[in-house]
Amino acid sequence: MTTTGRIALDVMGGDHAPRLILEGALRATDPAQDDGLPAERILLVGPEEEIRRILAEHSAEDRFSILNSVEVIGMDEKPGIALRAKPKATIPMCIQAVKSGEAAAAVSMGNTGAMVGAATLILRTLPGVRRPGIAVTTSMTGKAMTLLDMGANAAPRGSDLVEYAIMGAALQEGVLGVQRPRVGLLNIGEEDQKGTDLTKEARGLLLESNLNFVGNIEPDGLFSDNADVVVTDGFTGNVVIKLIEGFGAFLLGKVINGAQDAGSPVPKEVLGKVMASVDYSEYGGALLLGVQGVVVIGHGRSDANAVYNALKAAAQAVDSDVNGKTVAALAGRA
Amino acid sequence: MTTTGRIALDVMGGDHAPRLILEGALRATDPAQDDGLPAERILLVGPEEEIRRILAEHSAEDRFSILNSVEVIGMDEKPGIALRAKPKATIPMCIQAVKSGEAAAAVSMGNTGAMVGAATLILRTLPGVRRPGIAVTTSMTGKAMTLLDMGANAAPRGSDLVEYAIMGAALQEGVLGVQRPRVGLLNIGEEDQKGTDLTKEARGLLLESNLNFVGNIEPDGLFSDNADVVVTDGFTGNVVIKLIEGFGAFLLGKVINGAQDAGSPVPKEVLGKVMASVDYSEYGGALLLGVQGVVVIGHGRSDANAVYNALKAAAQAVDSDVNGKTVAALAGRA
Repeated sequence: MTTTGRIALDVMGGDHAPRLILEGALRATDPAQDDGLPAERILLVGPEEEIRRILAEHSAEDRFSILNSVEVIGMDEKPGIALRAKPKATIPMCIQAVKSGEAAAAVSMGNTGAMVGAATLILRTLPGVRRPGIAVTTSMTGKAMTLLDMGANAAPRGSDLVEYAIMGAALQEGVLGVQRPRVGLLNIGEEDQKGTDLTKEARGLLLESNLNFVGNIEPDGLFSDNADVVVTDGFTGNVVIKLIEGFGAFLLGKVINGAQDAGSPVPKEVLGKVMASVDYSEYGGALLLGVQGVVVIGHGRSDANAVYNALKAAAQAVDSDVNGKTVAALAGRA
Repeated sequence: MTTTGRIALDVMGGDHAPRLILEGALRATDPAQDDGLPAERILLVGPEEEIRRILAEHSAEDRFSILNSVEVIGMDEKPGIALRAKPKATIPMCIQAVKSGEAAAAVSMGNTGAMVGAATLILRTLPGVRRPGIAVTTSMTGKAMTLLDMGANAAPRGSDLVEYAIMGAALQEGVLGVQRPRVGLLNIGEEDQKGTDLTKEARGLLLESNLNFVGNIEPDGLFSDNADVVVTDGFTGNVVIKLIEGFGAFLLGKVINGAQDAGSPVPKEVLGKVMASVDYSEYGGALLLGVQGVVVIGHGRSDANAVYNALKAAAQAVDSDVNGKTVAALAGRA
């Protein structure tokens, strides 16, 4: 059996583990699925006995290889402490599988900090990268936009943001085929003197780089296709992604309930389309860019469909050699 | 004529100046208005000749006192340079009127940085306040929530956030009558170790304070009535307010167009209610807290209704003696 391009999937990550994680793996490898993955591309990491029992319910007991791991790092555990205490938990085991070559990618819906920590410590960063960054690619405007860092690095340097820009551009170019991706810097004004010391430093470095830097992007400009890649610090990025998610649900809830109460409900297909455009589960999870391996971090609330999309995103990142392209781009930086 | 509680209004501030600014003043002082203001509470600051000409169209040529000022600081001018070059422009003149006692409050829909700069330099901060902060009070959940700083201070210290918390709580208690307002710290997780050096420092100081500190508030928690006051740095706060505005318009546009195209438009009264809850013009502008005087900064896109709400907010802040209460609260800090 080949292990080329295999994806190690953390069966115990997220709010709906292990059941919906396994259902996602089953869906991704459903032979009836047009763009499905071969089952041998997935390596399940989790408690073997329980996994086989659940798979048996789907008559798929032997569909996947399994790496047995009975320990779990909880969503609220402190990453550093948990990784030291449980080196054989599913998250570090997934990452170890990438390190050893048993897998090319790791996917988890679990503790984000533990995934970032394990990946950074075990896989190490790519040459030319100081700190990895979490990239989320949305398609709110109908066009893919990659935002990073979404929370790996709350206090970056200006040079980190340039590395994020290079990595985000390599992702857009290498995976999505966007030529000379437009790179923007999230800021609170369009003028160059706006923002913090960090944004001023990053802006100067981005202007000097050979990237296609289009300048500052204001938060409301995220919804008008002004850039293909937008970089920011991990604190702000995490605020942005959580605000979009929370405010989207809040606002749509108001419209749905209001229209319902007024006796003219919003058509389901309209809501479906709008929600899909802002729904995290459609994004396929976040990519941790800048480590030696493909690492996908899904949303804790992921359902089977989100797991399926995360597995597809991981396969796509492996198959398009995002990291090889990123290393080349980093080597060629101005 | 008494000048007690007078509001100096920058007639030249914002995208729709001077016409809609004057219409806002007219509406606020319309005798037919139940909760209107007496005309003598408003001091117009701007080009006298042009103002009288526009007011004459409304047969109100002599309704207001006017402080003549023919210079304007543009929306995109650098505040420091503009204030030095144009000390007699409408914005510094409004602030000077507060300094001299001709007015108790200044209201402008113009250059935010110039308002903050002029207020800080000319009025000085309240005793116990290092840097003023911009507070926006929203009622998205149906309950007033005060967010600050929304952009006056992009790189605060932890102690600044505590001062913002005290000032926000004094506003909630003094103006809105909320007892022991719940104070939250905007952060990217609920756990204490989350966030930046700033959030960690601020969290420690808030825990030691005698405020009713309820802990970290995640961005998606802003929509669930978890706190009455939420503090953050001015960069993040500005991102939050601009994202809510931009994303709200984007998402509602998608729903409206989608429902329209599907032949079952969302009822106008439903949209009206939802939009009012997220519409900046209903907030009455932002209060610059921490300076010796009441300073209201409206949205650049303000229409007559927004100007009217900003004038009412200024009058309310003056009449409830927000600053007196803030000084008392600051003096009593732990």
